[in-house]
Amino acid sequence: MSKGLNKNKISPPQSPLRARLYEIIFEAETKEGKLFDVVLLWAIILSVTAVVLESVAGIRFAYGIYLRKLEWIFTILFTVEYFLRIFCIRRSSAYIFSFFGIVDLLAIVPTYLNLFIQAGPSLLVIRALRLLRVFRVLKLGRYLQEFNVLIKALKASRDKVIVFLLVIMTVTLIMGTLMYLIEGEEHGFTSIPKGIYWAIVTMTTVGYGDIAPETTFGQILASLIMILGYAIIVVPTGIFSVELHHAIKTSESSRVCPQCMHEGHEVNSIYCRFCGGKL
Amino acid sequence: MSKGLNKNKISPPQSPLRARLYEIIFEAETKEGKLFDVVLLWAIILSVTAVVLESVAGIRFAYGIYLRKLEWIFTILFTVEYFLRIFCIRRSSAYIFSFFGIVDLLAIVPTYLNLFIQAGPSLLVIRALRLLRVFRVLKLGRYLQEFNVLIKALKASRDKVIVFLLVIMTVTLIMGTLMYLIEGEEHGFTSIPKGIYWAIVTMTTVGYGDIAPETTFGQILASLIMILGYAIIVVPTGIFSVELHHAIKTSESSRVCPQCMHEGHEVNSIYCRFCGGKL
Amino acid sequence: MSKGLNKNKISPPQSPLRARLYEIIFEAETKEGKLFDVVLLWAIILSVTAVVLESVAGIRFAYGIYLRKLEWIFTILFTVEYFLRIFCIRRSSAYIFSFFGIVDLLAIVPTYLNLFIQAGPSLLVIRALRLLRVFRVLKLGRYLQEFNVLIKALKASRDKVIVFLLVIMTVTLIMGTLMYLIEGEEHGFTSIPKGIYWAIVTMTTVGYGDIAPETTFGQILASLIMILGYAIIVVPTGIFSVELHHAIKTSESSRVCPQCMHEGHEVNSIYCRFCGGKL
Amino acid sequence: MSKGLNKNKISPPQSPLRARLYEIIFEAETKEGKLFDVVLLWAIILSVTAVVLESVAGIRFAYGIYLRKLEWIFTILFTVEYFLRIFCIRRSSAYIFSFFGIVDLLAIVPTYLNLFIQAGPSLLVIRALRLLRVFRVLKLGRYLQEFNVLIKALKASRDKVIVFLLVIMTVTLIMGTLMYLIEGEEHGFTSIPKGIYWAIVTMTTVGYGDIAPETTFGQILASLIMILGYAIIVVPTGIFSVELHHAIKTSESSRVCPQCMHEGHEVNSIYCRFCGGKL
Repeated sequence: MSKGLNKNKISPPQSPLRARLYEIIFEAETKEGKLFDVVLLWAIILSVTAVVLESVAGIRFAYGIYLRKLEWIFTILFTVEYFLRIFCIRRSSAYIFSFFGIVDLLAIVPTYLNLFIQAGPSLLVIRALRLLRVFRVLKLGRYLQEFNVLIKALKASRDKVIVFLLVIMTVTLIMGTLMYLIEGEEHGFTSIPKGIYWAIVTMTTVGYGDIAPETTFGQILASLIMILGYAIIVVPTGIFSVELHHAIKTSESSRVCPQCMHEGHEVNSIYCRFCGGKL
Repeated sequence: MSKGLNKNKISPPQSPLRARLYEIIFEAETKEGKLFDVVLLWAIILSVTAVVLESVAGIRFAYGIYLRKLEWIFTILFTVEYFLRIFCIRRSSAYIFSFFGIVDLLAIVPTYLNLFIQAGPSLLVIRALRLLRVFRVLKLGRYLQEFNVLIKALKASRDKVIVFLLVIMTVTLIMGTLMYLIEGEEHGFTSIPKGIYWAIVTMTTVGYGDIAPETTFGQILASLIMILGYAIIVVPTGIFSVELHHAIKTSESSRVCPQCMHEGHEVNSIYCRFCGGKL
Repeated sequence: MSKGLNKNKISPPQSPLRARLYEIIFEAETKEGKLFDVVLLWAIILSVTAVVLESVAGIRFAYGIYLRKLEWIFTILFTVEYFLRIFCIRRSSAYIFSFFGIVDLLAIVPTYLNLFIQAGPSLLVIRALRLLRVFRVLKLGRYLQEFNVLIKALKASRDKVIVFLLVIMTVTLIMGTLMYLIEGEEHGFTSIPKGIYWAIVTMTTVGYGDIAPETTFGQILASLIMILGYAIIVVPTGIFSVELHHAIKTSESSRVCPQCMHEGHEVNSIYCRFCGGKL
Repeated sequence: MSKGLNKNKISPPQSPLRARLYEIIFEAETKEGKLFDVVLLWAIILSVTAVVLESVAGIRFAYGIYLRKLEWIFTILFTVEYFLRIFCIRRSSAYIFSFFGIVDLLAIVPTYLNLFIQAGPSLLVIRALRLLRVFRVLKLGRYLQEFNVLIKALKASRDKVIVFLLVIMTVTLIMGTLMYLIEGEEHGFTSIPKGIYWAIVTMTTVGYGDIAPETTFGQILASLIMILGYAIIVVPTGIFSVELHHAIKTSESSRVCPQCMHEGHEVNSIYCRFCGGKL
């Protein structure tokens, strides 16, 4: 049905053991398959939690040795899983070079790398990427369809959002330059990039307050950009609402033309809008 | 009508006194029933206000003794009400273990507990839970239907919102880890949890400014997450708008014309707008 | 057409002079009427600007004497206008006690009061209320209809918004109490009202940063309330979007049933949904 | 097709060289025309980046001489492009006084001006305006239609948004005045303009925290304006969503089937979905 996301669904192998393993690891229809997914989900969450906790100085000093052991247990588990996946699939290259194949590999590599080179914290981000594996588990459920509708609405909104982001970029650039000239270095606006940073902080209504206008004219300009940022959010909201409305409507009417196989006909259509054949 | 929320509407008892009490306490159709609800509403608001005021040091020293007296008056009133509710209902266990039954009990227990153990401020939260009782009073009015439509739309949005929250969580985790590595401990990012906290503060556009990026690269990354957080709010907004639109439409259109079988009549319609027949 | 807002449209008087004045002051169809509106609009904006500028210490010391003269000129102008309005209208009491009648009176009273009593700055707010008079000028244009549609959508959203605000209030109360217990007085959470203030600042994503959680558990709770506040905005947005969509649709199809005079029929209706007669 | 934005599409000249140049510079159908657009896009982005980087003190000292050379290269390139545009168009005055003609001129003038007068940083903003030229490149693609739909929806929302902004302005003025009176100069509210600035910072949920209420009554008022600002964003969001929905629907449904006269065909439809006839 959803062709775009099924690149990973590679045809199952012939040998009974591999076929059985394939069913457990890649599918979620059987009882064992579901259990495997639940265990995997918890292993991912626990291993990511361990990475996060290890970065807290107090915990690292007190329990660092246990966390490192846990790290190795999870890494070995994920390594076994990774090779089982390669083993049980017919065309293993298709898996290895797929998005999830690369994420699965990145989930185990950093721990082994640490043995040879003292890379230290720079591998933390890669280890945190493990969380991406959570999506693999969700992929196999009813969330897939929801995800597809969201992606479809986002894709349909893309062109309008690009135009919108270009306007935002131009406004922040011009506003940032103006504030750099008005406020000057003595009020924290030391360069145009700093001004652009301030403009983004203000326009997105984040407002840290680390840099804030202090001159009267600067505050007037800041008020303008605030109201603009506050008002302009309605544009992408409206775009996405309308596109989502459309995406849901067309996904509901998933009728396929019997002549040309085109999808996406509206509920009250009588003839195919691509080939003119009767639906 | 609305089966989901009527778990508390337990069948009335037989004795005339209990039936009368039931009508006053649980229903709001009679004059006395309405009066009871209004008095209860004010008692709840006043008792919560007393709890809130007692926490202000100046007020506690000056009027603490009066506030404690007020506290006991409300507790005794609510205790009487609680036992009357148990008395007048036929199956009292159904009430006691219902959501509102537990909230009603929690509203009176802390004050009695304070007599025996010096629990001090930790019971404050439980006493503040009294405000939840306000919903009981609202439950008995036209707000119920509005609430049902909202709940229906929220339930329909649930799957999409879970996917959305997962994306947010993954983004904040990866961004928080990146900022921990880029900014380091000297700029306040002392651990990954701190980085995640900063990422949430930034992405939700709250922006306290207690932790803010100071390096150039950190500010570029912060700009990205700000724009992402600013733009991504459109996703749940769109989801909810569309689902609410759907929920209202289906709640309106549940009536079918007995003559022409057309659906889609508004709630206050008397005649079918397609064939003119009586609904 | 729009009965709700036309309370001020009182029947014109008979004498030719009064009728002429009425046309100029209350209507905007004639050339003189439009000119009067434009002059009034600028007089209001200038007088409010004078009030605002007078509060700036530097400007008050340098130009205070001129601003006070300007103040008197505008007050006398508005006084003349006020009595002309009373004079040219048939039932002057209807004007005097209408919303705009009271605003018009409040626009001139503070300056005269300052002659007798030294009220000082406390009359500033009343003088700033003059800006409300701007709406009178807009009332007489095409903005009226837009305003009516907005008001209609807001009214239709009211019940749902009340339920929504009650949820917000309960959440901020409970979260504020929790933070008061967790963070305590040493981190700025000196009382429950302070905690509630913090919860509102956080939930609305304003995030001043004057009070911010410092303990780990406090920051976890703060993250929760931030995500909640960020996500919960979708609820009123959705409500209002849907109601506005409905308000515009029904205002567009302003068809009136020839039998029962009911308005608000949808575009594709054939029979009146109130009396069953043919449209 | 889209008449509103095509003011710049001036009729091509007769001479073969000019016609060829016109095709390359103003159109994007030919291979050379597309290449020209891509080169121009990168030149604009690079020249703006150079301006931004020059403002960073460290980079200016180290690479200032190279950036100035780059500046001159881009200026000469843009000058040649500007005169080629004038040369190859039939009615050059139409181009010179169009929006993009003026932007193109402003992109080259500041560098030459710097030769004669020491204007220094004040010309930076004009040089940053170069980014506006990016829109010229986008104008020639599929983004034009998206832009038109957005502009159409914004225009349709205009009257409602003006009413909305007036309400915002009145609220911030009155709230700013109130806070000036309540908090006073000792808490940073030194004048009404400062109070209005604070009200805008708060209402748009930016919340720098440079000025924050400190008295109890000030914090209560601040809570009110925060909730108002948080809730009021739904109004323009709703307005824009509905108008955008309308704008897209009418832009889609502008095609009529020549056989059955049905409207409402999507942009990429080839056959009528009601009668099956060719569109």
